[in-house]
Amino acid sequence: MYEILNTIKSPADVKKLNIEQLKTLADEMRQAILNRDSIIGGHVGPNLGIVETAIALHYVFDSPKDKIVWDVSHQCYPHKLLTGRKDGFITDAGMKKISGYTNQDESEHDLFKVGHTSTSISLACGLAKARNLKGEKHNVIAVIGDGSLSGGEALEGFNNAAVLNSNIIIILNDNEMSIAENHGGLYTNLRLLRETNGKAECNMFKALGFEYHYVADGNSVEDMIDALSSLKNIDKPAVLHIHTLKGKGYKFAEQNKETWHWSVPFNLADGSPKWNMSGENINDITYNYLLEKIKKDKSIVAVNAATPSVFGLNETRRKELGEHFVDVGIAEEHAVAFTSALAKGGAKPIFMVMSSFIQRTYDQLSQDLALNKNPAVILVAWGGISGADMTHLCSFDIAMTSNIPNLVYLAPTTVEEYMAMLDWAVEQNDYPVIIRQPKEVIHTSLPVDTDYSQLNTYKVEKTGQKVAVIAAGSFFKLGQSVANELNKHNIQPTLINPRYLTGIDQSCLENLKANHDLVITLEDGELDGGFGEKIARFYGASNMKVLNYGSFKEFTDRADMNDLYNRYHLTPELITKDVLSVLK
Amino acid sequence: MYEILNTIKSPADVKKLNIEQLKTLADEMRQAILNRDSIIGGHVGPNLGIVETAIALHYVFDSPKDKIVWDVSHQCYPHKLLTGRKDGFITDAGMKKISGYTNQDESEHDLFKVGHTSTSISLACGLAKARNLKGEKHNVIAVIGDGSLSGGEALEGFNNAAVLNSNIIIILNDNEMSIAENHGGLYTNLRLLRETNGKAECNMFKALGFEYHYVADGNSVEDMIDALSSLKNIDKPAVLHIHTLKGKGYKFAEQNKETWHWSVPFNLADGSPKWNMSGENINDITYNYLLEKIKKDKSIVAVNAATPSVFGLNETRRKELGEHFVDVGIAEEHAVAFTSALAKGGAKPIFMVMSSFIQRTYDQLSQDLALNKNPAVILVAWGGISGADMTHLCSFDIAMTSNIPNLVYLAPTTVEEYMAMLDWAVEQNDYPVIIRQPKEVIHTSLPVDTDYSQLNTYKVEKTGQKVAVIAAGSFFKLGQSVANELNKHNIQPTLINPRYLTGIDQSCLENLKANHDLVITLEDGELDGGFGEKIARFYGASNMKVLNYGSFKEFTDRADMNDLYNRYHLTPELITKDVLSVLK
Repeated sequence: MYEILNTIKSPADVKKLNIEQLKTLADEMRQAILNRDSIIGGHVGPNLGIVETAIALHYVFDSPKDKIVWDVSHQCYPHKLLTGRKDGFITDAGMKKISGYTNQDESEHDLFKVGHTSTSISLACGLAKARNLKGEKHNVIAVIGDGSLSGGEALEGFNNAAVLNSNIIIILNDNEMSIAENHGGLYTNLRLLRETNGKAECNMFKALGFEYHYVADGNSVEDMIDALSSLKNIDKPAVLHIHTLKGKGYKFAEQNKETWHWSVPFNLADGSPKWNMSGENINDITYNYLLEKIKKDKSIVAVNAATPSVFGLNETRRKELGEHFVDVGIAEEHAVAFTSALAKGGAKPIFMVMSSFIQRTYDQLSQDLALNKNPAVILVAWGGISGADMTHLCSFDIAMTSNIPNLVYLAPTTVEEYMAMLDWAVEQNDYPVIIRQPKEVIHTSLPVDTDYSQLNTYKVEKTGQKVAVIAAGSFFKLGQSVANELNKHNIQPTLINPRYLTGIDQSCLENLKANHDLVITLEDGELDGGFGEKIARFYGASNMKVLNYGSFKEFTDRADMNDLYNRYHLTPELITKDVLSVLK
Repeated sequence: MYEILNTIKSPADVKKLNIEQLKTLADEMRQAILNRDSIIGGHVGPNLGIVETAIALHYVFDSPKDKIVWDVSHQCYPHKLLTGRKDGFITDAGMKKISGYTNQDESEHDLFKVGHTSTSISLACGLAKARNLKGEKHNVIAVIGDGSLSGGEALEGFNNAAVLNSNIIIILNDNEMSIAENHGGLYTNLRLLRETNGKAECNMFKALGFEYHYVADGNSVEDMIDALSSLKNIDKPAVLHIHTLKGKGYKFAEQNKETWHWSVPFNLADGSPKWNMSGENINDITYNYLLEKIKKDKSIVAVNAATPSVFGLNETRRKELGEHFVDVGIAEEHAVAFTSALAKGGAKPIFMVMSSFIQRTYDQLSQDLALNKNPAVILVAWGGISGADMTHLCSFDIAMTSNIPNLVYLAPTTVEEYMAMLDWAVEQNDYPVIIRQPKEVIHTSLPVDTDYSQLNTYKVEKTGQKVAVIAAGSFFKLGQSVANELNKHNIQPTLINPRYLTGIDQSCLENLKANHDLVITLEDGELDGGFGEKIARFYGASNMKVLNYGSFKEFTDRADMNDLYNRYHLTPELITKDVLSVLK
């Protein structure tokens, strides 16, 4: 099945093959990629499109002496297949071992752990400068997709790479797509360059000072080998613009590029997902809210930075939202400033961003938004402890955002509370408000507050004594379980939904002193710098004991959630054990 | 003296003047700007260069209906002079009242509080989109300097502005300078455009899809009025590239643009500074360290993002450092990724950044650096509570960086400890290390450790009992004063230099339980998410009382330091009072 692929132990083996064999290798690599993706899920389209580039790179260059940096790693599977990691695509054990991202701990052919976009050029610049300082000679190559090009870090990198005055080769993989379609003026120029076979005078790369080459068929292994051979050992900064087909070789992925950028496990024959994803979900609820809201108020606008699928905003839905949806491309910094100014200009903006990517906007949250106190709304998806790859963890957003002045970060515990908070946030005029979307659909039949303008007012859901459980957002459910577990030990704890992650309710906390000995905090995220430590500080000089629960300060990697919860003591039983030990 | 300027109460008054009067107004405005700068310090060159642009903007457009966004506000003085705030340049009371940055609380002609660069285009995009959604008609104008252009947020903004499909006018003020000289390929294109009077085919702005115009003499008020008049009410995105003279009208500033970007108070007649800045300082110490180090090790490289003056790296020193100094331009994100990759490539990089601007790199610190654990060094200048403008506060860096896994953040208390930590950080191969530069030159004759590889080992400087004072970095001196004050009340406290801001010394803290009742923490920065809260959490379930001292979560603005210290209880007397109250 993998006749040629099985002979490839390292890049040296690629160099031994003739063109026909390389083409067969490409076919086998596509099979292997689809095998992995269909079984455990992963990036489909980006990897299928870059197979010939990876082959040509390893045919022409000498990794690891020559350094190849893969932007965001969405397209690193072919490279992994050629660098001793084909087990990661073929065997069950291998798939668990080999990650979907580059990782220097896996192979000397990987330089960095990468999962956020637009970093490759800056990283390549560093490698090139280090080479120059040390008087070494080798090629440094960055491979970046057209989608990643719009990120500020990539553009800063381009600006600096242009003046390196030494070897650096940037392969711009233009498949005419980001995760969804591209957005911005950069793509006007890329189109012009494609349409003129790279000949147009108006060329942003030449404008920056790069040597520029174009390959019309980046899925031709011969053309790619020719192009790369002519650039090998070049003594100045060069851009190789290649045109490839995203999803090449799998008809469903070629036909529907957005859906097949990344996929859950699927049936190879018909492309149908193996996971049942029906049932009520937060994305439908949020979309329906937006749709209804827009009918009544033309100033509503949803903003997203190239990840509409995280919010279930597929092409149909985006069309339905029309001018009330703006995808700014991969440009989270711009998105926050843009959102702040939309609010200043009298619109009602909602920036929708995944927790891991809000990390790209600290200074914009602080300066463009918080300092200006514009009443913009940010919706954070997937916030919390997870079994994600180490590059896509979502456990840092509370610690990152909650210590910026003026921001209000709300953590709803139910769908009803989420809707009430969202509508309040959209309609108020006083605060920048972030809302952490619930990860699960949990309904309540109890009434929820509609006004959140009295900041930092915690809600006492159940009054008890001795122990108070302050359980935030998605961990409120855990708080309820802890309370039930404590009941078994004749403790009737107070249960509190704090609602606000950005501040403390002094009066509520003060009142607890009367008949409580211990306060425990539960937050779905990192303890260091998070919500619970603020409570610990508040009680620091009092007799109240405090136990904080959350995740540790660490990058976990595709962790088993039960392992994590046990290690973090995030189970009702372990927490109860701790409580009893403190109270005794 | 200010005959015409005195008649300008609002932009409407500018429109009444003829060209000759406008030229006289320009002269008077330059006098007023120099008056303020010479008395209280501030941005000199950027403001002197943009006088005619500000006049033309207010002559042609109708602020506040038309919206003008000034990037970074380094050049907003002329605008302030024309919008009712000339007192800020002429009277002592006015100078205190009016800040050096745009501020919507000062005037309806300011849209945003801005002091970090590269944000104006994104902000203008938001205003333009809000206008479109609401069906309003007016012009939205961003004024951005060529230096700010290299920042990722600006480039993301350009990319998005290009496809707004409606009115937005970007004035690119090209004075051929950032704070120091410019760096990067962007400037190759700007030079070509200047040399061809804007006619070159290879034009990055046209490549992005902008309508493009060029004004060769941006200090000609007639030419600027003509150019802006022709763009007024344009229905698509346009770039007006203008060439101006930084420092125009003040010969010292024209001659030495870098020195005169920003100045302390100075004598108008000869340009000499009014402040005595002689004596030993941290910048000289750091520079001398670098110089010596480079002689012995060719892999050492200092990296900076367009603020070499913060580190005293003037042109002479930069030349001396040669290829061992890289200014990447305003591009902090690139700088961190570049630095991380330099370390990966075997160089020994030191990224030198001001506390307020490290905020621009959260995700790069997390993903490009910390996740990869490359042994790069970052030097943070000016970290701590200050009387700075609200846009340039330096009190957030501990909370921002110390909760990112894998980073080691060191806080030296003396010059000798600083040098030892820096040298250890540069030579070790295991951790990304950040060092908070001391703000004051404090020497010690006691030996300091040279090895910091045992992470999070606090140093007990004096053993006492009852109270332990953990005093970090620049607040160690305060800790000593607190100890002395406590002595007066018959308390002999333990005094601890924690050295590491990113973690706790469990064994040290555990030992304190034996004969201490209270631990107090002192950190020169925000309490929320900071160092002290980690100590409060550690002791949460114990009988140890904890008091944390630092700044509140707030944006202060040109605050009086004594007021701040009193409000934050950061004096030996107030802390001692608190201690006695807890102990009684």
